[in-house]
Amino acid sequence: MTKNILFIMFDQLRFDYLSCAGHPHLQTPHIDRLAGLGVRFTNCYVQSPICGASRMSFYTGRYVHSHGAAWNNFPLKVGERTLGDHLREIGMEAWLIGKTHMKADEQGMKILGLSEDGVIGARVAQCGFDVFERDDGLWPEGPDGPYDTKPSPYNDYLKSTGYKGENPWHDYANSALEGEDEIASGWLMQNAGKPANVAEEDSETAWLTSRAIDFVDSHAHGAPWLCHLSYIKPHWPYIAPSPYHDMYGPNQVTPVQRRDTELDDPHPVYAQFTKNAVGRAFARDEVRRAVIPTYMGLIKQCDDQLGRLFAHLEATGRMQDTMIVVTSDHGDYLGDHWLGEKGLFHEASVKIPLIVYDPSPEADATRGTTCDALVESIDLAATFIEAAGGEVPGHIVEGRSLLPFLQGTPPAEWRDYAISEYDYSATPMCANLGLAPRDARLFMIADGRWKFIHAEGGFRPMLFDRDADPEEFNDLGASEAHAAIIDDMYARLGDWARREAQRTTISDAQIERMRKGGRRKGILLGLYDGSEVEEELTIHIRGKVGARPDPHNV
Amino acid sequence: MTKNILFIMFDQLRFDYLSCAGHPHLQTPHIDRLAGLGVRFTNCYVQSPICGASRMSFYTGRYVHSHGAAWNNFPLKVGERTLGDHLREIGMEAWLIGKTHMKADEQGMKILGLSEDGVIGARVAQCGFDVFERDDGLWPEGPDGPYDTKPSPYNDYLKSTGYKGENPWHDYANSALEGEDEIASGWLMQNAGKPANVAEEDSETAWLTSRAIDFVDSHAHGAPWLCHLSYIKPHWPYIAPSPYHDMYGPNQVTPVQRRDTELDDPHPVYAQFTKNAVGRAFARDEVRRAVIPTYMGLIKQCDDQLGRLFAHLEATGRMQDTMIVVTSDHGDYLGDHWLGEKGLFHEASVKIPLIVYDPSPEADATRGTTCDALVESIDLAATFIEAAGGEVPGHIVEGRSLLPFLQGTPPAEWRDYAISEYDYSATPMCANLGLAPRDARLFMIADGRWKFIHAEGGFRPMLFDRDADPEEFNDLGASEAHAAIIDDMYARLGDWARREAQRTTISDAQIERMRKGGRRKGILLGLYDGSEVEEELTIHIRGKVGARPDPHNV
Repeated sequence: MTKNILFIMFDQLRFDYLSCAGHPHLQTPHIDRLAGLGVRFTNCYVQSPICGASRMSFYTGRYVHSHGAAWNNFPLKVGERTLGDHLREIGMEAWLIGKTHMKADEQGMKILGLSEDGVIGARVAQCGFDVFERDDGLWPEGPDGPYDTKPSPYNDYLKSTGYKGENPWHDYANSALEGEDEIASGWLMQNAGKPANVAEEDSETAWLTSRAIDFVDSHAHGAPWLCHLSYIKPHWPYIAPSPYHDMYGPNQVTPVQRRDTELDDPHPVYAQFTKNAVGRAFARDEVRRAVIPTYMGLIKQCDDQLGRLFAHLEATGRMQDTMIVVTSDHGDYLGDHWLGEKGLFHEASVKIPLIVYDPSPEADATRGTTCDALVESIDLAATFIEAAGGEVPGHIVEGRSLLPFLQGTPPAEWRDYAISEYDYSATPMCANLGLAPRDARLFMIADGRWKFIHAEGGFRPMLFDRDADPEEFNDLGASEAHAAIIDDMYARLGDWARREAQRTTISDAQIERMRKGGRRKGILLGLYDGSEVEEELTIHIRGKVGARPDPHNV
Repeated sequence: MTKNILFIMFDQLRFDYLSCAGHPHLQTPHIDRLAGLGVRFTNCYVQSPICGASRMSFYTGRYVHSHGAAWNNFPLKVGERTLGDHLREIGMEAWLIGKTHMKADEQGMKILGLSEDGVIGARVAQCGFDVFERDDGLWPEGPDGPYDTKPSPYNDYLKSTGYKGENPWHDYANSALEGEDEIASGWLMQNAGKPANVAEEDSETAWLTSRAIDFVDSHAHGAPWLCHLSYIKPHWPYIAPSPYHDMYGPNQVTPVQRRDTELDDPHPVYAQFTKNAVGRAFARDEVRRAVIPTYMGLIKQCDDQLGRLFAHLEATGRMQDTMIVVTSDHGDYLGDHWLGEKGLFHEASVKIPLIVYDPSPEADATRGTTCDALVESIDLAATFIEAAGGEVPGHIVEGRSLLPFLQGTPPAEWRDYAISEYDYSATPMCANLGLAPRDARLFMIADGRWKFIHAEGGFRPMLFDRDADPEEFNDLGASEAHAAIIDDMYARLGDWARREAQRTTISDAQIERMRKGGRRKGILLGLYDGSEVEEELTIHIRGKVGARPDPHNV
């Protein structure tokens, strides 16, 4: 029976870097075990392959085109209803441990008189969560100051544990030691193979796991909760604490997925992405050889820490009453397709791992199975609302509950295509292409076979045939032979773009109830003499009337 | 010099029922005089041909697809920025006198802890206005109770003046007298030619004008203001006080614009509209003969009352410092195309009168001219913001300022097409067509020549060639010969539907400033050894480090 929900997210974890998903060298037994208890979804796409926008979709259950927080640090507008809002309405708390990349809509809050000092304002500023621990895990500083100006709980933790300096997040946890006392920063990928200068138990992944255990213990009684345990790793800086720093070697790096032909007459937007700093870096073999083993080590540590957490859930009885989800906010190119990071829509970037364990007996039928339905990350919000006993408000939440899949009764009708979006207006690629900010946007439609990408700004689309070309090397966007497919994809994109995503204040059921309401509330349209309708509707407009007031009677 | 803005809206005033717009029998000298002082826009379309949705677009400067309040009494969601919000930010007050058809988003307000008792909550509930007088002018009652449950200021006024009973709005102001003391309700169109049983000076149009004069007098000093004077007439119930009830006769009713061929194999959605109660009623000649002279009388009264108001503005000096706009929220079919009311996109319904008088010397060049640019009602919000000295926030407000047209310097680039939308999910037509609520939606694109209407729900589109068929009798939506036009219209609709309407928390300029921000705030992506960038960017990641804390040193 589901009482609570533990919603675990990793950051930048590729769908195929788990042993249950087939990675040939990386063993992730704890995550695999969860997959054995639940369902692993093999075709789950994020709504945007970038932390901030993707997460705002997870947390609202709505497309980026609907909520508008289209890139990192684009604030989520006040008024967007969040998972926390929906869950609290049905008696479930919603807590955060870790990262959200949420930026508060300060201007919108000011206009509505909301302050982060109040409970309501704090929830608005934290995209609907109550904060057990908020730490986005990006505490660098540059010539223009720090990236994140909030207080850093992780730095506070490190300092309280004895680490020195202003920013032990960087100086220890995300750097190695060079010689006696020189910082070898994790920002420089040549250092990826060195051990982070932090005890494993003090690293971010271990610290957040400990905080999660604290949460579980302190919330053993009371209201049902959703806890969003949102890890920072295996996201860059790519550097891992011992022993994870050298657990894997270059011989365990899987072959890069790229072809020289991808760079022949490439789509201009794709070409720009290959030319950015990360694309150029990951095109170098020494970068891949240095980074990927460490990326694997970071994942291995994540898995081990989940093992520690799951053992605690077992010991406290939480495995029996807690739905557990493991997923990620997007993938990582790691050099595939001549790209680094994320942002475009190849599987490495846009597909995520998704495992859902549902303790309720209804889900017994599917334990240990996989599901290849087209799933979108916004489906989780709907799933959680339904798991918490609520009805999914379909006029607000655009995702659909996955519970039917978990219960072995897949819906007769399911979506034909998944959507993802990317707004690169805040990147130099936009300027390099000479685009206005709102033309620096991409839309993906993936229907299982075809993956279609529309680029605003007057470019041709991109198109991949995943049946003939599962690795997505051959862009058919300029192919005359595929004009009909492209037309069809544009029709789908139009259907989707026209969807009624903002009519969030009234439900379909309420609208249906309104239909007869006008006349029954006295709006008597289209009557000539009243004989057109039943008498009941006109009795309110008949009767006697007194004299008009004298002063005006002319 | 513009200090204030008087934003006058009539309700259901057709674009062609003014003498300055060419009506052959109806004289509207006061509105004509304003047109002589300003610019009359001859191609202004509303964003939705229905009161509530249209007004929410006027008041937010955003398409219905953006704000979501798609029909009457669909609440405008908390967080939608209004004209009032924009104006107050630049030091201009925003006041309401009359109708808005705004329904507060009670659930959204509750979640944010907002109450109508507070200034902020009151503004949210009144879609951004401070209320001088709010009266939507629909106070009927039926078997299920009253249509509008708010207190009625107009009924209070009538009662204070000596009118009797619970609802003098209906019993006197919108009814005639039959015999000695029988109510002849204005809801029954057979009564349209009878005089309303109210003194002209107590009728809604006169009362609102008096309230506007009170406003002008009480706001003679102090902050600049926008005053939205929002009349209720010539909207139904079609009944006018003496002498306006018989000022026009059936011989002054212009010929109905309809053809029998319109009903041959009609588009299913259009067919449903012709079959609704108002469509059937207005197909009857006696209904047109009864209603249209009264509709003209109501407009004549509106014009006379504007004459009274303009005289007061002259006398108080406000004509010299006040921008004055006269417009309407949509038109009225009055039997044209076998339709009554509004809702579809023939000119009678979707085009509105728009006159803008700008007192500033910059506008001298265009006084008394007309402008046939494609204007949308959302342009007014942008115009008002610019007239008040602000910069139009293009990431929020989707309309464009009309000031360049007023100043005789039309923009080099202007829109190629206007959009309008209609959601009929709350009407019986939706049920009759067997549609789900969100499939009961229509989108219009008008580009000057072509008028294209897409209907959700699997129907073919509608298409009119206004060059060949200015009266829009011939629906070409099924014409093979027009397939290319239709394809082009779908491409435009797709472009429009994909627009970035929800990224309202960050401006294009802010995004451009973000572009270099990451690295300069320490996000050092894509570096292998640091040589890739100037040294300044990496000094923060270099340096000495202290020892790791002992307890963990293994």
